[in-house]
Amino acid sequence: MSKTISVGIVGYGNLGRGVEAAIRQNPDLELKAIFTRRNAQSVVAGTATPMVSISDIEQYKGKIDVMILCGGSAKDLPEQGPALAKHFHTVDSFDTHALIPEYFEQVNDAATTNGHVSVISTGWDPGLFSLNRLLAEAILPEGKEYTFWGKGVSQGHSDAIRRVPGVKNGIQYTIPIEKAVESVRSGSEPKLSTREKHLRECYVALEEGADAEAVANEIKNMPNYFADYDTIVHIVSEETLKAEHSRMPHGGNVIRSGRTGPNKESTQVIEFGLKLDSNPEFTASVLVAYARAAYRLAQAGDKGAKSVFDIPFGLLSPKSPAELRKELL
Amino acid sequence: MSKTISVGIVGYGNLGRGVEAAIRQNPDLELKAIFTRRNAQSVVAGTATPMVSISDIEQYKGKIDVMILCGGSAKDLPEQGPALAKHFHTVDSFDTHALIPEYFEQVNDAATTNGHVSVISTGWDPGLFSLNRLLAEAILPEGKEYTFWGKGVSQGHSDAIRRVPGVKNGIQYTIPIEKAVESVRSGSEPKLSTREKHLRECYVALEEGADAEAVANEIKNMPNYFADYDTIVHIVSEETLKAEHSRMPHGGNVIRSGRTGPNKESTQVIEFGLKLDSNPEFTASVLVAYARAAYRLAQAGDKGAKSVFDIPFGLLSPKSPAELRKELL
Repeated sequence: MSKTISVGIVGYGNLGRGVEAAIRQNPDLELKAIFTRRNAQSVVAGTATPMVSISDIEQYKGKIDVMILCGGSAKDLPEQGPALAKHFHTVDSFDTHALIPEYFEQVNDAATTNGHVSVISTGWDPGLFSLNRLLAEAILPEGKEYTFWGKGVSQGHSDAIRRVPGVKNGIQYTIPIEKAVESVRSGSEPKLSTREKHLRECYVALEEGADAEAVANEIKNMPNYFADYDTIVHIVSEETLKAEHSRMPHGGNVIRSGRTGPNKESTQVIEFGLKLDSNPEFTASVLVAYARAAYRLAQAGDKGAKSVFDIPFGLLSPKSPAELRKELL
Repeated sequence: MSKTISVGIVGYGNLGRGVEAAIRQNPDLELKAIFTRRNAQSVVAGTATPMVSISDIEQYKGKIDVMILCGGSAKDLPEQGPALAKHFHTVDSFDTHALIPEYFEQVNDAATTNGHVSVISTGWDPGLFSLNRLLAEAILPEGKEYTFWGKGVSQGHSDAIRRVPGVKNGIQYTIPIEKAVESVRSGSEPKLSTREKHLRECYVALEEGADAEAVANEIKNMPNYFADYDTIVHIVSEETLKAEHSRMPHGGNVIRSGRTGPNKESTQVIEFGLKLDSNPEFTASVLVAYARAAYRLAQAGDKGAKSVFDIPFGLLSPKSPAELRKELL
């Protein structure tokens, strides 16, 4: 590697802390500053990195090669993505699937006008799962694709539980149903209802005096979130919740089966799977690899918004093309 | 899609027939001709495609966008790859790992000088497995990677069996040992010997009067091929061999586990797997997707040899970038 790539983190929650740790595993990247909307004096970084108010971020123009945006997709990124693409190369994990086309256009306008490269919607879904959906569909055009998520914590469903009256705290695990996964893996291309694909398991700590059965029923019948699934509700103490359910595991599988051959007599199955102890740390590791790619694209004179579909894997690795061909091909 | 991509097949064995079938699954590709070293009159295509002697291939300059080279890596491709890159955009599945750097240089010289794009070493290993090795290593730099092959037919090992005196015909299956796979999936990063990773299972039909035990012993103790493995030898009739072992299944898994987080307390596992009824048909399907990418790279003004590491996934799909972002990201 010719030069160390200097990186900034924007937003210092779970994802930002994951990026901070991931950068330390990549010697060709150097963390220059962390930008926060909170009072920068009150936030302590896990490393000896300057903590800077986000209002001062433009002072870092020309000093930071790539900004890794670690804010949320609901409120932070729709504003920060286009705004920061004006001043920096950026990478983000914008994950509101339905709004990606619109977000891409906004970031693309800002990045193109200002000669920057902005990689949007990295992570694992969107991200690595999307890549595998595309790959499998391109190779096996006649076939069917399935995505299973979990076992893992769904933030949206956990939030929904916590809004139920009588619930003090709670967490929800999405669990793929093994029988369905096996049926897909066999290449049988089954028709699977929502209920047949995933199970929802909730651990709930109650407010003093709350009715356990009423709470469980309200959760199980919640439209959109739980009503279409088989849902298991465990009532536990707040201590148990903290002790046994404070990590953020996740994962899942993208499986496509298709048919090839003159008479389509052969069944072919492509599967990609993740088993993650920490969802935010893994997403962070993906962001960091794409930060390297963003820098290299920019060095090669490229500009505009990019998705994972636009970026060759070779740019993700610190190794040279010749090393990659020799060692990994 | 603007224009149909016209494709030629060079070499009409199992792989060439697989490409012929795969092209029919991709409406934006059209098969123009099949080139053979045999007497073209004596070879019958599975479709109504002209069968042409390979000595006439240069007459197709300007008429065929991409040549898909379906010859073997031992003798055909080292000669045909560089020779045909002078006249056409090409795609191949050169799979002699140790010789890839040299092959790349030779094809690159021919392709660059003549303004062509040549994608080398596609398929699944090298190819999709290589992509997943690179991806997983870039995302989880602190970790360990494992490749398991099978259950599937190894052509090299089957050939070795057939050279044993007393063997009339035979086939060898490489089988991953499930206990080892599970141990890797757990993230424990086990040290595994050759014998602990794969098992070799042989089905052998004997010549009249051959000594079954002597044949089995000679196979089991064959250096390089079998001596380092636990090998099971089944003596079967030639009819059984034909009836039950004439397909070419294969597959395998690339698994990497690594650690993330401030104190590397999280274990993350990335897995990519294939389960293939037909190895040559699947390799053919990969070649066809990369033929599309080669054409598009050339249309964009690119030239030279490329590996799968150099090609964004977006180019593999017939869909437009905007469609891909909307439907698959």
